[in-house]
Amino acid sequence: LNRRLAEFGTTIFAEMSALAVRTGAINLGQGFPDTDGPEEVREAAVRALRDGHGNQYPPGPGIPELRAAVAAHQERFYGHLGLTCDPDTEVLITTGATEAIAASLLALLEPGDEVIALEPYYDSYAACIAMAGGRRVPVTLRPRPESGTYALDLDELRDAITDRTRLILLNSPHNPTGTVLSREELTEIARLARERDLLVVTDEVYEHLVFEGAHLPLATFPGMRERTVTIGSAGKTFSFTGWKVGWVTAAPELVAAVRSAKQFLTFTSGGPFQYALAEALALPDGYFTGLLEDLRAKRDLLSDGLRAAGFEVYRPQGTYFVTTDIRPLGHTDGHAFCRALPERAGVVAIPNAVFYDHRDQGAPFVRFAFCKKTEVLQEAVDRLKKLA
Amino acid sequence: LNRRLAEFGTTIFAEMSALAVRTGAINLGQGFPDTDGPEEVREAAVRALRDGHGNQYPPGPGIPELRAAVAAHQERFYGHLGLTCDPDTEVLITTGATEAIAASLLALLEPGDEVIALEPYYDSYAACIAMAGGRRVPVTLRPRPESGTYALDLDELRDAITDRTRLILLNSPHNPTGTVLSREELTEIARLARERDLLVVTDEVYEHLVFEGAHLPLATFPGMRERTVTIGSAGKTFSFTGWKVGWVTAAPELVAAVRSAKQFLTFTSGGPFQYALAEALALPDGYFTGLLEDLRAKRDLLSDGLRAAGFEVYRPQGTYFVTTDIRPLGHTDGHAFCRALPERAGVVAIPNAVFYDHRDQGAPFVRFAFCKKTEVLQEAVDRLKKLA
Ligand SMILES: CSCCC(=O)C(=O)O
Ligand SMILES: CSCCC(=O)C(=O)O
Repeated sequence: LNRRLAEFGTTIFAEMSALAVRTGAINLGQGFPDTDGPEEVREAAVRALRDGHGNQYPPGPGIPELRAAVAAHQERFYGHLGLTCDPDTEVLITTGATEAIAASLLALLEPGDEVIALEPYYDSYAACIAMAGGRRVPVTLRPRPESGTYALDLDELRDAITDRTRLILLNSPHNPTGTVLSREELTEIARLARERDLLVVTDEVYEHLVFEGAHLPLATFPGMRERTVTIGSAGKTFSFTGWKVGWVTAAPELVAAVRSAKQFLTFTSGGPFQYALAEALALPDGYFTGLLEDLRAKRDLLSDGLRAAGFEVYRPQGTYFVTTDIRPLGHTDGHAFCRALPERAGVVAIPNAVFYDHRDQGAPFVRFAFCKKTEVLQEAVDRLKKLA
Repeated sequence: LNRRLAEFGTTIFAEMSALAVRTGAINLGQGFPDTDGPEEVREAAVRALRDGHGNQYPPGPGIPELRAAVAAHQERFYGHLGLTCDPDTEVLITTGATEAIAASLLALLEPGDEVIALEPYYDSYAACIAMAGGRRVPVTLRPRPESGTYALDLDELRDAITDRTRLILLNSPHNPTGTVLSREELTEIARLARERDLLVVTDEVYEHLVFEGAHLPLATFPGMRERTVTIGSAGKTFSFTGWKVGWVTAAPELVAAVRSAKQFLTFTSGGPFQYALAEALALPDGYFTGLLEDLRAKRDLLSDGLRAAGFEVYRPQGTYFVTTDIRPLGHTDGHAFCRALPERAGVVAIPNAVFYDHRDQGAPFVRFAFCKKTEVLQEAVDRLKKLA
């Protein structure tokens, strides 16, 4: 393994999901639903398989049907904000958001370029910046225990930008903290990006899981359309994370650049799933609001339960995840806590520390996923209550 | 797009398959079958989908069933040569061979490392070397028109190795030329790798398509097991190229290194297909020999037809592809020839020149795929005969 990747061993998700399998504990670690998505979407995949749609290489940029569906979905949800895209030149289908992130960074960064990312950050961000030869510059979201939220310090963001900064890697709704950046914050980020002529890669895979207010794509802010690469994903929205189909939308030149890298990472993938997800994206609005309401209830169940179990809870504004502080339980080291939790309580969680460069800042924080059946969440809460 | 990738626009496969769609020409360009693989494999994928196997994130290294099947397949076909692998530590499932190549190079190369590759080479090789910050050093396979084969000059290979050489990127059966390296050539490559302490990444996705003699995995040569990353793929062997499932087998340290990069390129992919392909790898020997005999007949049909149509033909020892020289037809520029061919003859082919650093050396060579229905190949030949 080369020096660039030396600091990245095994992703925490692989480590913790393996621990869940080994111990039989309830897996509230890695973010995947324990209930598959709509039967009609699954049956659309069956039809594609049997009709021979996608069993051979789909086009590298994705099948036209899915690119059109991504564009129609964008028009449906964000057209009123002026955001639309051309399916032929402004959409690229990827192997989940993971490949979209990798390809974007491998395409857009020159060695030595600085990339600003909101810390704590999803672990592939740091690894992909390293593979591209870039340098990551974390801007830390600060916990505000009073309000149970995290806050972005816009001055800190401003100060982090240097002449070497090429790109801001944004993520809202934010994994792992569940923070949704406000209109004011996004406005200022957009202003800085324009002023300093930066690109923004924005990971918005939880766009349909915003519990207060509506999702605001960064690309809708003034002057951002031409400098923003937006990442979406079917896994989170349609509860088929194992299919690994995601996408990038951006201006034609940016999509062409990302495609240049992407075509050599996987060329293409998931042929029959692409056909099924083209249908999924056209599901009626009720599907999307149903998903949101279901997860809102689960967020509340888990957040309230964790609070009752003695955790300090950061009730998320979006995503699948709730972050907790374990200090009220008498613990300070989240990684040790998570390693012991399956034995102690039969539950798997994720230590936020692994998403920090400043590990000490993340030490006491632990993330729990609530994209699980109600009875599973209830059982997890019951088990965790015995910890106190 | 950054400087590293600036020379890599759109892969030739995307360009030529799009041309085929646009013109309705017979696509003998990109290497995918026009008949899907076994119905029982497809139905295994349907079962996995409906049973909820793989609809959520499979483990990053691949599902245990598929890793075990890859190990059993290796034991079945190469166990008599002493080659076996441990499914838990020596197998990694990837998004096709493409991701296996990308992850191997991104994991194993330091910036500035030299990589020797057999020219002409599959286009992702050069791009992945560039993404990893490496330098490619081509060693050219020379056409031998007398025998209708290509030959590796072992002296040239020896001379290409420097103190900066880190890795040989091998490919046998070789795409695009159809060359199968001989036992003597592989013995000398292995000797050089040991002597100069090099790693070898060997792309053996056409292992079941060797028309004369048997496939010899490089990893079976003395001292190579611990320094070889072997790449395999389900797409070519089971005729489901659109599923994009491949794998890497290697010693535990090498698999761990490749996994470190792979987990951040896609994390995982193709959940339900992994279950189906675990069954496919266990198909009886008759499946594999049937595939071979079918493609041998098609190789002969297309090779003979192209010769009758006036091409000089390099009848392949392996792969899906036959390389031709178009000079007997009065042409010298293969790329121009291929661009015009859909209009002139209703056939799409691939110009080998794009696989060369020394483009002039590849200029008059054109590749045709024969993984198509007999009647389609016959029709293509009939059309091409009108060119003369
Ligand atoms: C691709 S594994 C990570 C899944 C996820 O989004 C998370 O758990 O944070
Ligand atoms: C992944 S596209 C290339 C397919 C192939 O192997 C070829 O045509 O050479």
